[in-house]
Amino acid sequence: METLKEIQDFFHNGYVDYRPNLTVDCAIFGYHGGELQLLLVKNKVFTKWCLPGGYVRKDENLDRAAARITAERAGLENLFLKQFKTFGEPGRNSPRSVDGDKLLELTGIRISEESWLTGETASVGFYSITDMVNANPKADFLSSECRWFSIDQLPPLGFDHDEMVREALFTMRMHLYHFPIGKNLLPAKFTLKEIRQFYEVMSGKQLNASNFPNKLISLGLIVKLDEKRNIGAHRSPTYYKFDDEVYEGALSEGLVLV
Amino acid sequence: METLKEIQDFFHNGYVDYRPNLTVDCAIFGYHGGELQLLLVKNKVFTKWCLPGGYVRKDENLDRAAARITAERAGLENLFLKQFKTFGEPGRNSPRSVDGDKLLELTGIRISEESWLTGETASVGFYSITDMVNANPKADFLSSECRWFSIDQLPPLGFDHDEMVREALFTMRMHLYHFPIGKNLLPAKFTLKEIRQFYEVMSGKQLNASNFPNKLISLGLIVKLDEKRNIGAHRSPTYYKFDDEVYEGALSEGLVLV
Repeated sequence: METLKEIQDFFHNGYVDYRPNLTVDCAIFGYHGGELQLLLVKNKVFTKWCLPGGYVRKDENLDRAAARITAERAGLENLFLKQFKTFGEPGRNSPRSVDGDKLLELTGIRISEESWLTGETASVGFYSITDMVNANPKADFLSSECRWFSIDQLPPLGFDHDEMVREALFTMRMHLYHFPIGKNLLPAKFTLKEIRQFYEVMSGKQLNASNFPNKLISLGLIVKLDEKRNIGAHRSPTYYKFDDEVYEGALSEGLVLV
Repeated sequence: METLKEIQDFFHNGYVDYRPNLTVDCAIFGYHGGELQLLLVKNKVFTKWCLPGGYVRKDENLDRAAARITAERAGLENLFLKQFKTFGEPGRNSPRSVDGDKLLELTGIRISEESWLTGETASVGFYSITDMVNANPKADFLSSECRWFSIDQLPPLGFDHDEMVREALFTMRMHLYHFPIGKNLLPAKFTLKEIRQFYEVMSGKQLNASNFPNKLISLGLIVKLDEKRNIGAHRSPTYYKFDDEVYEGALSEGLVLV
């Protein structure tokens, strides 16, 4: 759905291939060099900043819908997306919140009264964490902008997306204790201080300088390399790397980082 | 929807008050005296054991839908229900899996071809934990049975409910580390050994006999009473109770039991 024509097709006929009143919204967290940010799109019709989202096709599962929607709406491919919560408060996106005249003016689209497109949706929330430096978000036709915001300086969001972001952050931070994280976000080799600082940014908490890395080592998640960072004769810290097998196993099985 | 008439009304007219193709399914865990069980209903139409579930009304949110559905389908009121995951694999409940002839024979209901009721649903999974002794599950008209099964001896379930139960258990066990649990499941006063054994049953894991209770104490979640269980002069263990304020705060704010 990258062109106006495809969007028009969706609203006029294509919506029959989609599940009625079900959407996916995606909280994409960006990390780089000690900073945590969030990707937002500014919708031309609602003129508010929102999470990128869209309808779910009947022939795709929710994971694939989230992957397709982040690719179409924000230009981001190959994200590792995880569900965090589904939102269905009555009134969360009442048809009145959508400015029909503006949609018509922008796209030539008029939504038929009988279509389920005039009804409210429930929305399945997904989150992902990506390296901001390798991600190049692009706005689609429906958005005027698409960019990163520092997690501490988010603008007010449309619909119930403020609540979605709070829930996404809560679940992402809970998952830090139960799934491995850091591959593709940290360099291939890193010091114990670097991985601790990474976890501190992600969790928003101070961590114990020795207990925390020791736990990662005792789980077998990270292993010591026979190599030190050269920063002077005495205090050169040793490099570590992730153990691929343990990491992949814990991604599917889970772990308890306690 | 406790009577046949109400069920007929739902399928013939009432469904317009419901969100198209969206359901809620509930994994109700029962705990008592060191045993973890799961509540299942045996559906008369599909003739398989399933989690109790149902459609979501347009005028209720997902939490209220889950509470209403567990009351209607299984007779359980006032459960504390939490979302764990939403399921939307194409084919998870294809119309072909529903035996239309049997539904007609049982209820006099014939579903119109144009109705969204012939389409697949996405289903929002909720879980709850209740004391089996105080819960008296009752089957509704659509079920031939409704009863507890030991978590280690579940029958094969209909649709994708085997996967739902695995995901519900995984999330419930992850939440053990992030939300308080035990009120209404443990007696008002309990020994450290009792609360540890309770957590061992819930988590399916052995826990350290001193580190684990010490962590609960240091979080302020449980407090020592000036009272001992009288089981002999020397080894009478001290009673503890939950701190109501810390418990309620942690229910809404979360905690990290690490």
